[in-house]
Amino acid sequence: MKKIIILGSTGSIGVNTLDIISRFPERFEVVGLAARSDDATLEAQIRKFHPKVVSLTEEAAAKKLTKRLSGDRPEILTGMEGLMEVARLSEGELVVSAMVGAAGLLPTLAAIRGKKTVALANKEALVMAGEIIQREARLQNVPILPIDSEHAAIFQILSGERYSDVARIILTASGGPLFGFSEERKKTVSPKEALAHPNWKMGPKISIDSATLMNKGFEIMEARWLFDMSSEKIDVLIHRQSIIHALVEFFDKSVITQMGLPDMRVPISYALHYPERAPLPFPSLCLEEIGTLTFERVDPAAFPLLACAREALKTGGTLPSVLNAANEIAVTAFLNERIGFHKIYDIVRKTMEAHILSPVNTLDEVLSADHWARMEAEGWVKKCAT
Amino acid sequence: MKKIIILGSTGSIGVNTLDIISRFPERFEVVGLAARSDDATLEAQIRKFHPKVVSLTEEAAAKKLTKRLSGDRPEILTGMEGLMEVARLSEGELVVSAMVGAAGLLPTLAAIRGKKTVALANKEALVMAGEIIQREARLQNVPILPIDSEHAAIFQILSGERYSDVARIILTASGGPLFGFSEERKKTVSPKEALAHPNWKMGPKISIDSATLMNKGFEIMEARWLFDMSSEKIDVLIHRQSIIHALVEFFDKSVITQMGLPDMRVPISYALHYPERAPLPFPSLCLEEIGTLTFERVDPAAFPLLACAREALKTGGTLPSVLNAANEIAVTAFLNERIGFHKIYDIVRKTMEAHILSPVNTLDEVLSADHWARMEAEGWVKKCAT
Repeated sequence: MKKIIILGSTGSIGVNTLDIISRFPERFEVVGLAARSDDATLEAQIRKFHPKVVSLTEEAAAKKLTKRLSGDRPEILTGMEGLMEVARLSEGELVVSAMVGAAGLLPTLAAIRGKKTVALANKEALVMAGEIIQREARLQNVPILPIDSEHAAIFQILSGERYSDVARIILTASGGPLFGFSEERKKTVSPKEALAHPNWKMGPKISIDSATLMNKGFEIMEARWLFDMSSEKIDVLIHRQSIIHALVEFFDKSVITQMGLPDMRVPISYALHYPERAPLPFPSLCLEEIGTLTFERVDPAAFPLLACAREALKTGGTLPSVLNAANEIAVTAFLNERIGFHKIYDIVRKTMEAHILSPVNTLDEVLSADHWARMEAEGWVKKCAT
Repeated sequence: MKKIIILGSTGSIGVNTLDIISRFPERFEVVGLAARSDDATLEAQIRKFHPKVVSLTEEAAAKKLTKRLSGDRPEILTGMEGLMEVARLSEGELVVSAMVGAAGLLPTLAAIRGKKTVALANKEALVMAGEIIQREARLQNVPILPIDSEHAAIFQILSGERYSDVARIILTASGGPLFGFSEERKKTVSPKEALAHPNWKMGPKISIDSATLMNKGFEIMEARWLFDMSSEKIDVLIHRQSIIHALVEFFDKSVITQMGLPDMRVPISYALHYPERAPLPFPSLCLEEIGTLTFERVDPAAFPLLACAREALKTGGTLPSVLNAANEIAVTAFLNERIGFHKIYDIVRKTMEAHILSPVNTLDEVLSADHWARMEAEGWVKKCAT
C-alpha cells in the first residue's frame, strides 16, 4: 500500500487523483488531504477515503467541517500551519502537490524536506523557486514526478534515454480558446469565453493561463528545472488538437513523442504507479478517427506573455516570482471582471518593469518578491479598472 | 573500435551504413563486406574502407574484382560458402544483415551462431524462420537490433519500458505510390510507377512490397518475432507522410511514438551506436513546416496481401516461407514486365492455396518449402504471362 497525501484535493487535479486511487484500492491508501475552503467536497472525500488528517486553510471552513463530522473523524487542521503539517505527515510516502498558484510553494518544500516523493502538478512552485526546490530534492534524494501532461510526457520519453543525447524539448500548446482572435476582439472577451478550453477541462486559473499562453511560459520554466535543460533547448509548438503532449528531439535527429486523448488521469496514474504502468479502462487514442494533426508556429505578437516568461527565466533572481505573482493578481482581476483580458499582459509587464531585481538565495527572498509584486500588480489593476 | 561486417554492402542499406561509418572513423572499422554481383561498387568500397575479407556471391563478378585489384587487396571469396565465411568472420563484432529477400536467412543465422550482434535490415529472414532465429539468438545470447525504420522506432520506444505494459504496437504505412488507385488502374501500372515511393528511396524489391503493402505484412511478422508480441497486438495505420514510424500504446492508454524525416541513416546509426546515440548533421524534423499529419484506416480490399501475411503468421509452419518465396518470384516477374501489378497477389494466393502445410522444426524444412514455393509460383507466373 502506497500512502498518499493530496494537497489541493478538492480541485481538478485532486479530484482526478482520487478517481485513480479509487480504482486501485489494493495499491493506495489516502492518509492526508488538504484543501483551501471547499468543506463540502472535502467532507465527501473524507467519508469515502478515510484519511487520518485533513486541513482546510480557511478557518471558517474548517469550523464548518468539524461541526458536520462527528465520531470517527480525522484530525482537522487549519491555517498555513495545518496545511504544512499535512504536507509532512510522517505516514505519507507520496505527496500530490496540486494547490493553485504560489500557495503550493511552501507545502511542496515541506513535503520534500519530509523526504516524500512529490508528484507535482503545481507548476508555480518551480516557476518561483525552481533552483531552491531542485537543490532541496537532490539533498533529500527525493524524486519529483511531473503530473503536468507535457512534463509527464517528457518524463516518459526520457525514461531509458541519456539526458546528454537530448537536442531539444518541444512543448505543444493548443493555443487555447482565443486562438486566432484579433487584438481588438480580445478586448471584449468575457471570462466565460476565455475559460472555454477546447480540449482540456481544468481549473479557472490554468484555463486563463492557457488562453494567454502564460501557462506555456510557466511550462518552459518548469521543464528547465525538472529536466535540468537550458531554456534555449525548450521550444513551443502550436498543436490545436492537444493529442501530442510533448516531443523530444535527440542529437541523432530521432524524435520521440508521447500522445493520448486529453485526460489528466493518465499522467496522474503514471506518477502514482511509477515506475509501473497500471491498466486504465479509458478509451484508446484512435488516430484514424481523429484523422488529422496540425502544427503551427507560435505568433509571439499574439502571445506576449511567452516572451515575459523567457525573459524572467533568463534573468533569474526575483523576476520569476514577480512574473508569477503579477500574473496571479491579473488573472484573478480578469475572472472577477475588474479588467479586460488584454490588460493581463499590461499588468504583468508593468509590474516586471517596476521591479528592482535582486538575486535569490533563500525562500524568504522569493516570498518577499512575491509579496511586493502582488501589491504592485494590485495597484496597476486599480489603475486599469478605473 | 567496433568491428563491422556488412552483408549486402552495395545495396541501399549497405551504402547508407557505410555513409554513417565514414562519419565516425574513430568508432568503427569495416572488417568484412559481402555483395551479390556489383563488383564495381564493391571495388570502390574496398578502396575506401579497406576490409580484410570480401565476398561476391556470383563467381564471374568475383573474378572481375580479383583482376582489377592488385597488391594490398582483401581476401576475395565467392559463392554461398564465401558469403557465409564473411558472415562469421572471427574479427567481426556487429553484422549488418542487409541482403535482399530469402538470401539473407542463412548468413544471418551464421552471424548469430558466430555470436555477433546482428543489426537486421533483412526482414525476410524473420518472416521465413522467425522462431528459429529468435531461439538461436537467445541460445547464443546475441542481441538483434532492428534497422527497419518501424522496428527501430518500436525498439527505441520500448527502451526503459516493460514489455508487459504494452497493449498494442501500431506500424505506420505510407500506402505507397499507388495509394487510392482503382483496381482497374492497377492492372496497367508500370514498374516505374510502382517503384516511385512517395517518401522513401529504397531498393526495387522493397519498393514494390511497399506498393502492395506486402512489406507491412512482413513487418507485422517481423515485429511478432522481434518483440515477442502476439499478432493480434500488432496493428497497421495508413500515414501518408511517413513521419511517424511507429506507435506503441500501453495499458494505461499512454501512446509513445518515434518520428523523424524519412532517412534510413538515422535507424542505421542508432543500431551501430547502440546503446548510445551519436549526433548526426541531418535536417531536424520541423513539424510547423510540415503542418499536417494524416491518418487513415487500411482498406483490406485494396491491399489483400496484408491478410495473406496475417494468415501465414497465424498458421505458421511452412506457410510464411511459402508466402515470402511466392512474393519474391511474383515481384521479380512484375519488375521484369512478365506479369501485371495486380497479378502479384494472384500468384501469392494461388501458391499458398496449393501448398500442403507442414510444421517447421529445422532450417532444412524452411528451405525446402521456400524451394517448392519458388517452383510453384514460377509455374503460376508462366500461366499468367501467356
